[in-house]
Amino acid sequence: MGYKFYDSVSSIPDDTPVDLAIIAVPAQITPSIIEEVGKKGIPFAHVFSSGFSELDSEFDKKGKKLEEELIKIASKYGIRILGPNCMGVIAPKSRLTFLMPIRTIQRANAENKENDSVNFEGLEDFGALTNDGQVAFISQSGGIAFTHGMISPSLGYNFSKVVSLGNQIDLDLLDFLRYFKDDPETKVIAMYIENIKRDGNAFVRLLKETTAKKPVIIWKGGMFQTGHQAVMSHTGGLAGNYKLWESMANQTGAILVNNFVELTDMVQTCLTYPIPRTLGTAVLSMSGGSAVENTDEVERNGLIMPLLSQELIQKINQFIPEVNSNLKNPLEFGGKNSLEQTIKIIGMLAEEPQFSSIIMAIPAEYLIFGRGNSLDNYIKGISNALSPNSGKLLICVSDNMNMFEQGIKMNLEFRFRALLNGFVAYRSTGAAAKSCYRWWKYGKYLEKIKLIS
Amino acid sequence: MGYKFYDSVSSIPDDTPVDLAIIAVPAQITPSIIEEVGKKGIPFAHVFSSGFSELDSEFDKKGKKLEEELIKIASKYGIRILGPNCMGVIAPKSRLTFLMPIRTIQRANAENKENDSVNFEGLEDFGALTNDGQVAFISQSGGIAFTHGMISPSLGYNFSKVVSLGNQIDLDLLDFLRYFKDDPETKVIAMYIENIKRDGNAFVRLLKETTAKKPVIIWKGGMFQTGHQAVMSHTGGLAGNYKLWESMANQTGAILVNNFVELTDMVQTCLTYPIPRTLGTAVLSMSGGSAVENTDEVERNGLIMPLLSQELIQKINQFIPEVNSNLKNPLEFGGKNSLEQTIKIIGMLAEEPQFSSIIMAIPAEYLIFGRGNSLDNYIKGISNALSPNSGKLLICVSDNMNMFEQGIKMNLEFRFRALLNGFVAYRSTGAAAKSCYRWWKYGKYLEKIKLIS
Repeated sequence: MGYKFYDSVSSIPDDTPVDLAIIAVPAQITPSIIEEVGKKGIPFAHVFSSGFSELDSEFDKKGKKLEEELIKIASKYGIRILGPNCMGVIAPKSRLTFLMPIRTIQRANAENKENDSVNFEGLEDFGALTNDGQVAFISQSGGIAFTHGMISPSLGYNFSKVVSLGNQIDLDLLDFLRYFKDDPETKVIAMYIENIKRDGNAFVRLLKETTAKKPVIIWKGGMFQTGHQAVMSHTGGLAGNYKLWESMANQTGAILVNNFVELTDMVQTCLTYPIPRTLGTAVLSMSGGSAVENTDEVERNGLIMPLLSQELIQKINQFIPEVNSNLKNPLEFGGKNSLEQTIKIIGMLAEEPQFSSIIMAIPAEYLIFGRGNSLDNYIKGISNALSPNSGKLLICVSDNMNMFEQGIKMNLEFRFRALLNGFVAYRSTGAAAKSCYRWWKYGKYLEKIKLIS
Repeated sequence: MGYKFYDSVSSIPDDTPVDLAIIAVPAQITPSIIEEVGKKGIPFAHVFSSGFSELDSEFDKKGKKLEEELIKIASKYGIRILGPNCMGVIAPKSRLTFLMPIRTIQRANAENKENDSVNFEGLEDFGALTNDGQVAFISQSGGIAFTHGMISPSLGYNFSKVVSLGNQIDLDLLDFLRYFKDDPETKVIAMYIENIKRDGNAFVRLLKETTAKKPVIIWKGGMFQTGHQAVMSHTGGLAGNYKLWESMANQTGAILVNNFVELTDMVQTCLTYPIPRTLGTAVLSMSGGSAVENTDEVERNGLIMPLLSQELIQKINQFIPEVNSNLKNPLEFGGKNSLEQTIKIIGMLAEEPQFSSIIMAIPAEYLIFGRGNSLDNYIKGISNALSPNSGKLLICVSDNMNMFEQGIKMNLEFRFRALLNGFVAYRSTGAAAKSCYRWWKYGKYLEKIKLIS
């Protein structure tokens, strides 16, 4: 690939400075490599290797001892260590990544036809994986950091930086959170954490400082993990753990989510929308049972559905017939609305003060395949439906629960392109409402701390 | 299409008997048609037309009057009416359906190239829409009956009958529930209801009789619908409504679900699996954060994860190395397991008495694309993993949250073919656990009523 290669750190010439060492040798050898790294004057080392304290048992602390050895050598030379047992860092602006280099894989596949069971065709359509973005992701799991890195382009966003924390023997969650707090390239911070290794109070203080500047999304893994060890005290244990984290989130303004899909939904929300001023939302829906389901899913997740003004109903009735339409909230359309009419109505709803958001729950398929529009036209129309700086959220729901390959492909492309056009296409009405509610709650927190300070 | 056509009911010859009239003329004309239907001696009429009491206001009861007129004429002749304002009945064995006749649409598209914005290519791959199955679906929403009918083949199941209820001026929910209770073709009853028009106690009694014979899944729409009318009393109102239905379900053994996706998940579960004897489940997972997420999602939804026996751990360690694997529960595999090994482990887990179900949460993509297996081999392997009559549930999770078109197509096919091969591939670990928990709860209800009687 055209890079110069040395067989040891010590053989790198003195006039060739090195910023970062990535160490991927067996655990036992890492101390000697760190020693070489120190002598070369490299300031940072990412220890990829596993085989440290994560493998220790009650009776065997070999891994822990090895870690202490690393720290001792690193301190001597002033090296800061990330890891061990982690994927490291993605920093697109520095062309630093631990994601699969897609072109290399493609070239390998082309050269070795037998080994082509992994097919990355079409991947580049979703954007180069090392494009830089505005999301910082800190992860206590290397696998989740990797997965997030690989799929985020298909969700329409990229990263300022990703950090896989590993065993955190030196640099830890708090170091990175503090860095991202002031990082001008980072607009949204998301994290996957299982436990806090250092002082919990320091974490809470730092969180408060950070959420005052930018949203922090926390997915806490292991809420229920005591389950199999203590089946009897099961319910008590997990409720306590969950309540603790919920209280912490309420006090710090952190946005707590429950799983990976909720995390990516929330990142998209924070990146794309202004904070909704109220919980009031207007829902556009197919009629009948579908409208009832949308109402249940919106209100179950905390949003409120105020009525339309009489003036607006009269205005809409000028171009949408009353038969088969129901201009309550949700606004139900029996199949007579065109894309142009729908976009016009969305614009009019956004001018009503009782709505901070508009949820477009009529499936994209319906207005695309059913009414002969192209996806291009649809996206263009939707993204222009609100006047700029309206401060309102236009939210789309794009479920891919259907049997048409064409529809599934369309929904995938729709979700990805939505974000690049200023709106989010969520996978369900419930998911849309949940994210919108959490975003509103963060806004209430910001209001509260402004009043106090 | 080769069918004989008459311009009125009265012009059908006497020697041509008719089983069912489907009436789709403007509402005002329906009484005169029902009169003709009566004279012809047709025993059943499905009134498709809308424009009845559903359009009435407080001041205008025209629709209600029209309905009373229909009932009066029908009583005179002994006609039973379904509707008005509904899609009617699907009865595959009688070749009766209200779903789009796909071949007709294809022919129309072929003849009229300009009107081909609806593309049904590939649909027939998922099975003919009028194949008969074992699920009865009763729906108070025509749209939901239609959607369910259209997508169920892609989920791997078909219907014994589907009924869209409409305004229920004669035949109603209870009539159909009573019929399906004793219908030998119906193994599972599912329903979407918004309200009970007749005596609630009669409904509860009938439900008890029915659930003693076969599972009844209820999706109650409109749990939250009072929201926009009474924002102030919001939370009180909805909690009361929900608690009422929850109590009713607990007392009758009905399986309550919250939305359409949960309903289809539950239908697949009841159709496919024996009732789990306990809540104990073994989870196979990718390692690290993914394993933590799977644990949270399983336990959040009510299942329990007991430990593996020491004997089993030793047996597995004979062919899976300890490094990068973790044989607690979830069983974590760091990427070294082959399909054959995975299937072998599933079989061994099924023999442990503490597990009533095994959740295979390693994505199908991993063992297919990542390990060079075909979908055919994968499905064959999975469906043979448990010995027949083990009484245990092998549950798959097949998330299609990825950016590869190939992976999405594979997951779609996997979900559809899973059911035909004796297992369910759910869209998430949480959905799998939730359905399994509800199925277990139904089993507990059955045990309880056996003890009482």
